[in-house]
Amino acid sequence: MKAKVHVFLKPGVLDVQGKAVEGALNGLSTVQGWASVSHVRVGKVLEFDVAATTADEAKAQVKDMCDKLLANTVIESYTVEVA
Amino acid sequence: MKAKVHVFLKPGVLDVQGKAVEGALNGLSTVQGWASVSHVRVGKVLEFDVAATTADEAKAQVKDMCDKLLANTVIESYTVEVA
Repeated sequence: MKAKVHVFLKPGVLDVQGKAVEGALNGLSTVQGWASVSHVRVGKVLEFDVAATTADEAKAQVKDMCDKLLANTVIESYTVEVA
Repeated sequence: MKAKVHVFLKPGVLDVQGKAVEGALNGLSTVQGWASVSHVRVGKVLEFDVAATTADEAKAQVKDMCDKLLANTVIESYTVEVA
């Protein structure tokens, strides 16, 4: 089964990578008109195959993986999609 | 308008971060049963607001940003969603 996990920093946490990207896009704006870009958030996305008989079982497994390895739940939140 | 960009390494390019995650998940498998995890790919996801009057205009702007800054099109591919 295909699993897709999105990991983002929680809303209150400063996203320095997002700020850097925002600054870079705005900096290119004199030529390109990208001064309007705002609220940039950068996250991770992981795609993988997981062996499970049902979607619910796969989802439970992947959530467990997120809690234990893929996300730092102190500062990051995640969403899981299984198909 | 909200834009969402997924950036992944192209299929032929070795994804070392994905391999590392796969190894780590498999390494936890004696207890957890995650030996089945395979084909891990790690990518980036960027979410931001962009000023545009139509979805098509926004999409064109974001594609341009991807080509110029957000993705290295030699080794990475991207998908753009605008909502």
